[in-house]
Amino acid sequence: MTKSANLFSDFPNNLQEELIEILVDAPNIRIERIVSTGHASPPGFWYDQAESEWVVVLRGEAILAFEDETRILKPGDYVLIPPHRKHRVNSTSLTEPTIWLAVFFGGEKADSAQRVAACDIIGVAHLKELS
Amino acid sequence: MTKSANLFSDFPNNLQEELIEILVDAPNIRIERIVSTGHASPPGFWYDQAESEWVVVLRGEAILAFEDETRILKPGDYVLIPPHRKHRVNSTSLTEPTIWLAVFFGGEKADSAQRVAACDIIGVAHLKELS
Repeated sequence: MTKSANLFSDFPNNLQEELIEILVDAPNIRIERIVSTGHASPPGFWYDQAESEWVVVLRGEAILAFEDETRILKPGDYVLIPPHRKHRVNSTSLTEPTIWLAVFFGGEKADSAQRVAACDIIGVAHLKELS
Repeated sequence: MTKSANLFSDFPNNLQEELIEILVDAPNIRIERIVSTGHASPPGFWYDQAESEWVVVLRGEAILAFEDETRILKPGDYVLIPPHRKHRVNSTSLTEPTIWLAVFFGGEKADSAQRVAACDIIGVAHLKELS
């Protein structure tokens, strides 16, 4: 049997923390599904990754900020983030889950733990505002 | 400016051939958007790739066949195809474009030219049936 699943299902409705699942973890490449429900990067936090990141929003909406520009990402919008191009998530939709697909490649492995931790902090704060 | 685009737009309505666009081409990884409009692999043709392929259907529908099983892929359904696991596309939706996202990694580079040629042959035949 070939392993398969669906990007748009199989996640809890009530996410306290941003959900990050590693779908593929191979040498030099990692594919992640990320589900955000109003999560954003903490104030002043910037991702500064050693890897390249190709990322697409498939459902929901997000505002992705760089030091010199801001992008609204709607379903299907993708962006290629070169290594060490600083970026942050200013916001994600408060009305529906935002489903991202991210492909990390090249460079050293990004620090997943740092990324998870950064999202969790602000994620919990956002959900408290919503409840 | 950061380069970006949308997976669900920017393709002609009337595709004679399957549309394959390379979105990322880096060492050991290639990301492709594929748009099929009723295209399928030619009878008896099997992909036998040196690379791993992670592939998802984002719009439309496809029937993906392996030697020992057949999968109907609907939006969001993804599958990881190991190197040299033979597979073919039995069919794609005739009523709407099928949009695939494929990530190839590891192994030697797959023979893109062979893949394009294989799809084109049957693609033209299918469109003739539709017209």
